[in-house]
Amino acid sequence: MNIVEIINKKRLKGKLSKEELSFMFNGYLEGKIKDYQMSSLLMAICINGMDEEEIFDLVDIFIKSGDVLDLSSINGIKVDKHSTGGVGDKVSLIVGPIVASLGIPFPKMSGRGLGHTGGTIDKLESIKGFNTSLTEEEFIKQVNDIHFAITGQTKNLCPLDKVIYALRDVTGTVESIPLIAASIMSKKIAGGADKILLDVKVGDGALMKTMEDAKKLANLMEKIGKFYHRDVHALITDMNTPLGDNIGNSLEVIEAMDILKGKKSPLRDLCIEEASHLVSMAKNISLEESEKEVIQTLDSGKAFDKFLEFVKYQHGDIKSLEVSFKTIDIKSTKEGTLNKIKTLNLGMLSVNLGAGRISKEDKIDHKVGIVLKKHLNDYIKKGDILCTLYVNKDITINPDDYFEIV
Amino acid sequence: MNIVEIINKKRLKGKLSKEELSFMFNGYLEGKIKDYQMSSLLMAICINGMDEEEIFDLVDIFIKSGDVLDLSSINGIKVDKHSTGGVGDKVSLIVGPIVASLGIPFPKMSGRGLGHTGGTIDKLESIKGFNTSLTEEEFIKQVNDIHFAITGQTKNLCPLDKVIYALRDVTGTVESIPLIAASIMSKKIAGGADKILLDVKVGDGALMKTMEDAKKLANLMEKIGKFYHRDVHALITDMNTPLGDNIGNSLEVIEAMDILKGKKSPLRDLCIEEASHLVSMAKNISLEESEKEVIQTLDSGKAFDKFLEFVKYQHGDIKSLEVSFKTIDIKSTKEGTLNKIKTLNLGMLSVNLGAGRISKEDKIDHKVGIVLKKHLNDYIKKGDILCTLYVNKDITINPDDYFEIV
Repeated sequence: MNIVEIINKKRLKGKLSKEELSFMFNGYLEGKIKDYQMSSLLMAICINGMDEEEIFDLVDIFIKSGDVLDLSSINGIKVDKHSTGGVGDKVSLIVGPIVASLGIPFPKMSGRGLGHTGGTIDKLESIKGFNTSLTEEEFIKQVNDIHFAITGQTKNLCPLDKVIYALRDVTGTVESIPLIAASIMSKKIAGGADKILLDVKVGDGALMKTMEDAKKLANLMEKIGKFYHRDVHALITDMNTPLGDNIGNSLEVIEAMDILKGKKSPLRDLCIEEASHLVSMAKNISLEESEKEVIQTLDSGKAFDKFLEFVKYQHGDIKSLEVSFKTIDIKSTKEGTLNKIKTLNLGMLSVNLGAGRISKEDKIDHKVGIVLKKHLNDYIKKGDILCTLYVNKDITINPDDYFEIV
Repeated sequence: MNIVEIINKKRLKGKLSKEELSFMFNGYLEGKIKDYQMSSLLMAICINGMDEEEIFDLVDIFIKSGDVLDLSSINGIKVDKHSTGGVGDKVSLIVGPIVASLGIPFPKMSGRGLGHTGGTIDKLESIKGFNTSLTEEEFIKQVNDIHFAITGQTKNLCPLDKVIYALRDVTGTVESIPLIAASIMSKKIAGGADKILLDVKVGDGALMKTMEDAKKLANLMEKIGKFYHRDVHALITDMNTPLGDNIGNSLEVIEAMDILKGKKSPLRDLCIEEASHLVSMAKNISLEESEKEVIQTLDSGKAFDKFLEFVKYQHGDIKSLEVSFKTIDIKSTKEGTLNKIKTLNLGMLSVNLGAGRISKEDKIDHKVGIVLKKHLNDYIKKGDILCTLYVNKDITINPDDYFEIV
């Protein structure tokens, strides 16, 4: 097979066979295809797309590039969830304890953050002592014991996806529905869960900017799930505002605990929605019944207790959580209605503060971040605090870059 | 400026500013932009195109990346020609002596072959002793003395084009009209000629497969010429059959001499057409008058004498020309009309025989090649010799891969 001919085929909107896809993608993992050839192919895929057969083939190639997790020694129907990423997304830290407290096994593998979206592993590492590198045995034992565990990858799942994602990130080839779907679904399928809930974010801070694209992605991922005989359900949720008030690692763990302790907010509503879907899928009961159970376990404090049990089980010291003592209040210079929160910019601001990474090697500061003090449609007076920055350095920002007041 | 944002902009069909183009392309030459980022941008340009302003900007960036040739010390109006490349294209070796024998200065810089198209420099190097590396002083003196010289690049013209072309060649991003136009025209303008004739090939063996694309490219290159106040004229000529009968380095020099010595053929007609355009542009006389002069200088033997003078001036020993003593006749297994000559395949066959390069480091064998014995629409009987291969190794080929007989 000829590398350039395959790239040319996709440039001219052709369909690649499984052999051609394997030749290119596995060849890239093996170092036979150069990164400049793969990025050129990825750009052609971004612009010209892939049909369903090509996408199913690519998912298969991604899965077979590494290990597949065998969760059969965990009792019960295992659930998993995935969000396409957002700013301030601490949903797993809330939904996990909720469903686990209802006896549903929730073995969760998570990643680290890159760019404007944070990673659950980074967030948990703001808790001193918290072990995010469980062995497979530890992971399975913990889920059997307390129904909930979060770890970085124990096995080498989809190594091909990892190298492709890293290349896409620096070559302007992230925004491709087929590539996003293949990346997410290969990892979820290799991860071994029976029931998978997907949260497709749409809006300014999300990969999918329009509802149309979000629907396409959701629909495609459900199809891939069906192809692999997994029960997959995709929600589409708004990402035109950060998820909750806090952005930054320890700040997000604190907010997750607040919700588990009963704080009312749109974030709580989203977590109840997601948890209800997972319970409904796992127990095969109606969404209404599930929602009752979810609210009951939240309000009773059982979900919060489960969170504490989970942190302790993974050797974390919850009392060690700290935020930066140095803060800067960002005040409004205008009067009017808060018409828009520029979520993506807030995500990038939190990276600049040190809460996230621009390149993989960057160290992050768990104590820094942003706490929003106003919400969409709030009436703002001059001098009102829009948000508070938790910082480790002096920084000056223009509120107009983050908040639109009209 | 942000690399990924610029790539994303072109992926989404946006227009790049001159600053953005310079940041990316000059950054690539300086090693600041990675090859995998440049190839991704090139693919986005291939698929989504560029507008005229972007193309003019890119030409300017290419030109300013290196030296510009100053031919002002050559007396008279300097002409140049360029072909978009074809199989068996030895036109420069014929047209050059024709126009030079009419007193028109023809200072020609040429390249080496890569892929299925040969390079004039390689062809000339089949003549023992022929110096293809003239200094700028030698080059200018020779043109002033005998009106004709061919050399590899004396100065560092458009080094950016060179690295970009090498990357395009291995990333499936060759076939882009804006990129082809920018590549050709930047070199021609930096080359310093006053009048430039372009020969845009169309057909199976050419970069432009359709007449529509060939017209677009021709039109675009004329516009770029106008922008730089150069008199540029573009012909569109057929490449559905090789140019002449011989493919391969010494074989092509021999055929060029045959034409200069008076052999009648479609190749002679093409050379007369091109030479007439050059003479008409240089002398500002009608095409009819020019054609008369061209035919007269050919028939009188003056053009052939000029060729011999040129070879001798560059220290070549014309008697040293040799072809391989080992030949293989390829015979037809069918009877019928020769309906199609698969030019591209013949070009690749000549590369496989050793006459061309697959990668830049490959050594070539000047003595090998192909001589066609039949032409389009000839009636073929079983056993007729379709072509003769001049080889240095045993090789078996299937005539059907090269000739369609119906």
